[in-house]
Amino acid sequence: MTGTVYLVGSGPGDPELLTVKARRLLDEADVILHDKLPGPDILAEIPDEKREDVGKRAHGEGTSQQYINERLVELARDGKTIVRLKGGDPTVFGRGGEEMVYLADHGVPFEVVPAVTSAIAGPEIAGIPVTHRDHASSVTFVTGHESPDKAESAVDWAALAATGGTIVVLMGVTRLPEYTAALVDAGMAPETPVAMVERASREGQQVATGTLSTIVDARDSVGIEPPALTVIGDVASTRERVVDFLTTTEAAR
Amino acid sequence: MTGTVYLVGSGPGDPELLTVKARRLLDEADVILHDKLPGPDILAEIPDEKREDVGKRAHGEGTSQQYINERLVELARDGKTIVRLKGGDPTVFGRGGEEMVYLADHGVPFEVVPAVTSAIAGPEIAGIPVTHRDHASSVTFVTGHESPDKAESAVDWAALAATGGTIVVLMGVTRLPEYTAALVDAGMAPETPVAMVERASREGQQVATGTLSTIVDARDSVGIEPPALTVIGDVASTRERVVDFLTTTEAAR
Repeated sequence: MTGTVYLVGSGPGDPELLTVKARRLLDEADVILHDKLPGPDILAEIPDEKREDVGKRAHGEGTSQQYINERLVELARDGKTIVRLKGGDPTVFGRGGEEMVYLADHGVPFEVVPAVTSAIAGPEIAGIPVTHRDHASSVTFVTGHESPDKAESAVDWAALAATGGTIVVLMGVTRLPEYTAALVDAGMAPETPVAMVERASREGQQVATGTLSTIVDARDSVGIEPPALTVIGDVASTRERVVDFLTTTEAAR
Repeated sequence: MTGTVYLVGSGPGDPELLTVKARRLLDEADVILHDKLPGPDILAEIPDEKREDVGKRAHGEGTSQQYINERLVELARDGKTIVRLKGGDPTVFGRGGEEMVYLADHGVPFEVVPAVTSAIAGPEIAGIPVTHRDHASSVTFVTGHESPDKAESAVDWAALAATGGTIVVLMGVTRLPEYTAALVDAGMAPETPVAMVERASREGQQVATGTLSTIVDARDSVGIEPPALTVIGDVASTRERVVDFLTTTEAAR
């Protein structure tokens, strides 16, 4: 009998933000394949005898993902129940889609176990709703990894600016100057509120606030480092209105 | 002492997709304010003595939301620990932002407890990743409640089409013919893959698949009813490639 692979999201990092199902599957699995993205508090709860750290093999992305794919199939053919534990949600910039297709192509039954995404949780913990009836009829999650300068960039910042909705940039610390400039060039007001949230729900959480024209300085003065996300849009101004009553954590204030 | 309000998301409907924290807060709360959106399986787990169903008061949206806001403040001033349980995630089209601001304006400490959003979970359970390294560098969640025909619509479908990313339409069953036409008019290929997922993770889950030009017929022949979401983009074609190996539920296949 071929075993089943569970592609499980770990959420933003606080172990209490795991789902009840993820918690159960971590208990029931024979093997748990993970990298460092779920964060230290969640990884500390995995028994050593079940743990396979596949992150350490990351010498070049391609090699690593191919190794993980093959290892999942190998363990399933051994009849194991396998959790592939992924940071955040499995399919929000998480390569979950690639793993799904590889497993199906190799005849391995699988299930995706959805998780809390930091793209929503990060803003919320900092006092920012990602949508608002009056200000934001849509929210877009986009990766900040790609350069807005390269011609073949898959991210069309001008189109994102035109949506009029909230924009949440994941993995967007380094390229912040480039994409904030691209959004202003595309016609967004330089006064548009922006917030950055680092290590949402984890120890060392930090928040920086400003506008499209001031957030780069705010990032530097607060000292925001990856992993962090950037929330762009009128909703970001909610934070200053509510922050004194946020009980979340000291760091989030 | 003023009590604390926890704005807690219930996730898509499966009680196992509650977070561990939501589960704990439901146990610890003095009072749980809810409407019917969390779904029958989750509501069945709330003890009657803690339950306050505020959904039944929905005679006109404004009245209802104002009543909920005032009741939250009243209970907090009585020193209660209150869970305001919301379907899905609290701030993804959930009015969580309005409740946050109201509570802060009235001096009530609060915390937002993020949840799994059906906008991501629905596609995943049906075998569809919302982003993909090769096909989708962004994903946008948008409400389908508004008419694309009305001049003052806050949703710019042409801009969404131009992003090139995945589009997930929530509450978009009725207006499906209008917004699929608007996206084609804006230049999206009529062959763009589309899937609809009804009652994701709940009993009676159903999936319909097609393209921008065929999904209206597919919706009708499957009999998709609200609540359902629509996933638009190349990622939607992943389902047919993986569906035979999805263990999720029979209905999802």
